Amino acid sequence: MGNPPIQFVLWNGERIPTSITSPVGHLHLRDQITLWQLALNPDLNFGDAFCRGSLEVEGNLVAVLEAIYRATPVVSHQNKLIDAFYHRLNRARSNTHRESPTNIQHHYNIGNAFFRLWLDQEMVYTCAYFSTPDLSLEQAQVAKMDHICCKLRLSPGETVVEAGCGWGALARHMARQHGVKVRAFNLSHEQIEYARERARAEGLAGWIEYIEDDYRNIQGRYDAFVSVGMLEHVGRDNYQTLGEVIHRSLTPRGRGLIHTIGRDRAGPINAWIEKRIFPGSYPPTLREIMDVFEPHGFSVQDVENLRLHYARTLEHWLAQFEREHDAVYSLADESFVRAWRLYLAGSLAGFTTGRLQLFQIVFTRSGQNDIPWTRAYLYGNGR
Amino acid sequence: MGNPPIQFVLWNGERIPTSITSPVGHLHLRDQITLWQLALNPDLNFGDAFCRGSLEVEGNLVAVLEAIYRATPVVSHQNKLIDAFYHRLNRARSNTHRESPTNIQHHYNIGNAFFRLWLDQEMVYTCAYFSTPDLSLEQAQVAKMDHICCKLRLSPGETVVEAGCGWGALARHMARQHGVKVRAFNLSHEQIEYARERARAEGLAGWIEYIEDDYRNIQGRYDAFVSVGMLEHVGRDNYQTLGEVIHRSLTPRGRGLIHTIGRDRAGPINAWIEKRIFPGSYPPTLREIMDVFEPHGFSVQDVENLRLHYARTLEHWLAQFEREHDAVYSLADESFVRAWRLYLAGSLAGFTTGRLQLFQIVFTRSGQNDIPWTRAYLYGNGR
Repeated sequence: MGNPPIQFVLWNGERIPTSITSPVGHLHLRDQITLWQLALNPDLNFGDAFCRGSLEVEGNLVAVLEAIYRATPVVSHQNKLIDAFYHRLNRARSNTHRESPTNIQHHYNIGNAFFRLWLDQEMVYTCAYFSTPDLSLEQAQVAKMDHICCKLRLSPGETVVEAGCGWGALARHMARQHGVKVRAFNLSHEQIEYARERARAEGLAGWIEYIEDDYRNIQGRYDAFVSVGMLEHVGRDNYQTLGEVIHRSLTPRGRGLIHTIGRDRAGPINAWIEKRIFPGSYPPTLREIMDVFEPHGFSVQDVENLRLHYARTLEHWLAQFEREHDAVYSLADESFVRAWRLYLAGSLAGFTTGRLQLFQIVFTRSGQNDIPWTRAYLYGNGR
Repeated sequence: MGNPPIQFVLWNGERIPTSITSPVGHLHLRDQITLWQLALNPDLNFGDAFCRGSLEVEGNLVAVLEAIYRATPVVSHQNKLIDAFYHRLNRARSNTHRESPTNIQHHYNIGNAFFRLWLDQEMVYTCAYFSTPDLSLEQAQVAKMDHICCKLRLSPGETVVEAGCGWGALARHMARQHGVKVRAFNLSHEQIEYARERARAEGLAGWIEYIEDDYRNIQGRYDAFVSVGMLEHVGRDNYQTLGEVIHRSLTPRGRGLIHTIGRDRAGPINAWIEKRIFPGSYPPTLREIMDVFEPHGFSVQDVENLRLHYARTLEHWLAQFEREHDAVYSLADESFVRAWRLYLAGSLAGFTTGRLQLFQIVFTRSGQNDIPWTRAYLYGNGR
């Protein structure tokens, strides 16, 4: 864990290091086995010990996690053999046709009631766009959907396919605000049910088809392809397949946008997140993302890194999660609540320290000249 | 060459294909050997035959080259063995410390008088930025320099290092408009002499140090690193080295920008351009460019593709080149003039058809949070 400005307090009251002044926080280790587990596989066992209460954090959890991340920089000069060992120990689950539904259900089928407690009204579970820093979370999620639609240059009557639609907010926004027809794919039964119900209630059922299926089964041709927060869960082995799906789905003048958590540098992913929170997840580097685009010659027009916007989004989520503390406890046990607190705080720390990035990538087909002359239009009219 | 809508006219008057209606242009082949050479290595021998006059184009040269490019798409399904053969036949020269000066002198030491005939007043020999499409070339080159300085967020008193400064226009613009101190590197003796003379004449000599040396010899620490139109000539083998140079040169809060010709898809480069015009040149894909950034964990903040702006820039250059036809002939022989006409027209066709891209990439160090909240500031105040 490097050498963060943190005071470790052992089960017997011993303090390590002895010399530290004004630590960011205190880590209480309740038993000896937890110390050994931390030494063996810190990423995985930190989370597990935190959840069962044998590791407790005194002080601001986000600040403590930021201090740990800052002490272990992205560019490590650690032994490559050790890196390889952890990589193998903590490698991500695969996302075959068979395993993807299990992986997705693990996370999303916790229940809509839980997510409703701390997400915005539209249930958007991806990075918001705070076009000005003082926006509320609700406003910033709408601003994000606006920003994406603007980048996609949607016209009324066009068709859009969305891969990984969550609770369907973007599809509803696109249909409502831009008059486009949307087919939106998602593997989570509960999310699809929720999305269909809301589209019906808002009179958008004729505009949106929510489909409970894998992105690999997308059929038809569309004027725009959009995927927000799915690539992280597609798995590296499937980027070329995703590229093929886009290739067969996009019209010659079609526009595409992929919005994904990413990283500056490839390396082992956080094992606890992958094993306990998001099985099969992997945040790719820009180089790795090119596996989607390059084989079919897709032309990247624009990449925007919205890292600090995800930090801000997570601040909102975490604060709301804590405000709804009692309601959360009525739905889940202590260990679950701890796990989600650590996941939200750890993700926030990941974005503030640069462990994680948020890439929004706009692309077209090769040689397509029907593209905006500059990006000024994204920032006109009071945006 | 695929099957472009072009009429081939052989030395004996024979026309191929016989059935074509309204071809984009006519290609006259003056002798049989040219036909064989075209079949063997079309990229290289098209250019060579064009220069010696044994292949002549009747019709709009740009339109004919566009038709040829469109008939041979970026994503080819050609035999991989043939691809590999051409790749080996036409592979780029290396850019070692020893060979780089030779490669650069080949192109730039043609003489300033030649470039002055068709470049803008500031002698900017890279893609301009037409913030509105009606700008003149002069205005668009200034707008490009503004756009870059804005992306770099320069403050008075800061220091900038420029790798590959051409005739020094950007360094002068940065010093004059932003009050920064610039060290600008370039291997071309004639360009450096010109740049120094102009800086002296404009009273900027105390602000800019033009250094006739390789980017690999950059020393010192700077608030900003900028390189416009150099990466194409660095060669793939040296991207990691360039990354190391940036890593040791940039302050913790430093910003960087690389502006380079690129491609959507890796593959053999145009052999004629590489052999006759720009030895050692190679337009990289975004994936390949990540070799500069990823090893040191640099964080890509923004990628803008300005492909059509380079097409517009080349339209201006080519038109001016043709307007100065007589003056060009007074400096060079027929074969040289043909070569430059083909190079300018071919590059223009490369950008309009999507063979070539223009990437402008902004980056910072890993985890640096002193970054703009959105990109709106790039488009404010009448930009």
